[in-house]
Amino acid sequence: MDEFRSIAELFAPLALPEGAGLLDDAAFISPRPGQELVVTADAVVEGVHFLAGTAPDLVARKLLRVNLSDLAAKGAEPFGYLLVVTWPAAWSTSARAAFARGLAEDQARFGIGLLGGDTVSTSGPMSASMTALGHAPLGRAVRRKGAQPGDLLLASGTIGDGWLGLQAARGLLALDAAHLGDLAARYHLPEPRLALGAILRAHAHAALDVSDGLIADVGHLARASGVRVVLALDQLPLSSGAQSWLARQPAPAAALEALASGGDDYELAFAIAPSSLEAVTAEARDLGLAVRPVGRIEPGEGVRVLHGGSPRTPRNSGWRHG
Amino acid sequence: MDEFRSIAELFAPLALPEGAGLLDDAAFISPRPGQELVVTADAVVEGVHFLAGTAPDLVARKLLRVNLSDLAAKGAEPFGYLLVVTWPAAWSTSARAAFARGLAEDQARFGIGLLGGDTVSTSGPMSASMTALGHAPLGRAVRRKGAQPGDLLLASGTIGDGWLGLQAARGLLALDAAHLGDLAARYHLPEPRLALGAILRAHAHAALDVSDGLIADVGHLARASGVRVVLALDQLPLSSGAQSWLARQPAPAAALEALASGGDDYELAFAIAPSSLEAVTAEARDLGLAVRPVGRIEPGEGVRVLHGGSPRTPRNSGWRHG
Repeated sequence: MDEFRSIAELFAPLALPEGAGLLDDAAFISPRPGQELVVTADAVVEGVHFLAGTAPDLVARKLLRVNLSDLAAKGAEPFGYLLVVTWPAAWSTSARAAFARGLAEDQARFGIGLLGGDTVSTSGPMSASMTALGHAPLGRAVRRKGAQPGDLLLASGTIGDGWLGLQAARGLLALDAAHLGDLAARYHLPEPRLALGAILRAHAHAALDVSDGLIADVGHLARASGVRVVLALDQLPLSSGAQSWLARQPAPAAALEALASGGDDYELAFAIAPSSLEAVTAEARDLGLAVRPVGRIEPGEGVRVLHGGSPRTPRNSGWRHG
Repeated sequence: MDEFRSIAELFAPLALPEGAGLLDDAAFISPRPGQELVVTADAVVEGVHFLAGTAPDLVARKLLRVNLSDLAAKGAEPFGYLLVVTWPAAWSTSARAAFARGLAEDQARFGIGLLGGDTVSTSGPMSASMTALGHAPLGRAVRRKGAQPGDLLLASGTIGDGWLGLQAARGLLALDAAHLGDLAARYHLPEPRLALGAILRAHAHAALDVSDGLIADVGHLARASGVRVVLALDQLPLSSGAQSWLARQPAPAAALEALASGGDDYELAFAIAPSSLEAVTAEARDLGLAVRPVGRIEPGEGVRVLHGGSPRTPRNSGWRHG
């Protein structure tokens, strides 16, 4: 009965009409004419994807944002999600309520709602998985596949802040307090770049979000598109905090490589024709978002990482040739 | 890299075209004209929903079937699923391969495929969650809401075998070997009653699948429909194994109540007009499936359990009045 009570009390207020107040155990979704459905699923596990002791509302909000980031990369507009929560006995009622409160806060922010799901108990660490659903005009959703030789590779925002932010959150970074706070916030609460949806649909040949680290992720794009990505480390867009960190590093190229190998940025990387660059940059600027070239697409496979025009061999990028 | 390798090697062969060979991290689903999408999510946790040591292929197949059972109760036709697997380090490569093999086997059986998902590691017990998607003709999917006073309540198959099967699987049941095997199989591999879809869409006012126990589940139906369900224990359809077990019990009414309170049956319970009974029973019989009345719908709320016409107060049903 605890399961039913937690669903009813915590989650029913979050439900969309399609989720039937969670009185049903399925959601009924009528297709929007001329739209296709884009669906993605991601999970977080305590101790793996978030630090034990992280505030439950932040865990919920990051789970939601990580999933919305996937939809953002497709140029899709999110509308709802299904949630499976695995509660450890040690999670108090107030921790569970805080988790639901975090969802409520970000639901309102992103204009989405709960469609259904399941809550279960575990003797292990807390984990949660989400399936997020969005719409895109039929045939206009952007894939990882589609990048073409000659394309430019662009990135939104700044790269490496998620990785630095994790270190900041663990107290492992020596920087001024303001930068530490900014970086930790980037790690805890990534900002899904949903605002770029229309630009991606209009211009991008292929796209993905940067979750595993830029080098590893563009490797996924290269594999799906059947191309090689050439990445220029000296073109990485860096936040003020990352620049401040970089200035203290003994080996700048290795440091840049680390920023491009760390995960949790949740920026978008996408390939466009060079002729679209001016329009894309201007349209993004109108939205208050920076996008800039970080590389290019060539025939071939895998990722070629350059610094000062010279190739490097990534050591710890998560990426594997072929 | 282990994550990528396990996705590529184990799960890519299971993917539907909409899942893009799992090279993408989202699925793109075009609506079928005149159909709505029915979406449900359920999870299993080792030690909670399946016994530690259960063969991994059985875990996978039960997870799939539990989700398909939810779609069956809606009168929906399943087409795909997203899967989140949380692997403990102790799960060997061959255990993971067996899990994928179980999915492959049941995918083929039910004509569905993998759309996407995520694999993550945990220091805790194995768990997995699934979001299953199906289609139903627009406006014809069956809800938990809609049962009307005067309706008959029907159940498919037999009730109580899941609960007896769990005890059989744990070696706690004294019965002949054939019955033990049948019951354990019912627990490990429920049969989603997808074949009843057309009958439900044509005749059922409300439906759900029996996963928490018949009494608890018809309580959910009562709550969603704003009615009372009257359940007649002496009308419970029982398997040969359950009849054999019942014959050895000192208190038949309490034993029947236990069968109606145990979970994991994955039969369907549904409300129809009395005038539909003959057609429904005949159409189900043509499919080789038994459906029979187990109760009726009245004005009011909650569940009233009768035995020999006298009311009983369920003690351990999971159900709560109001």
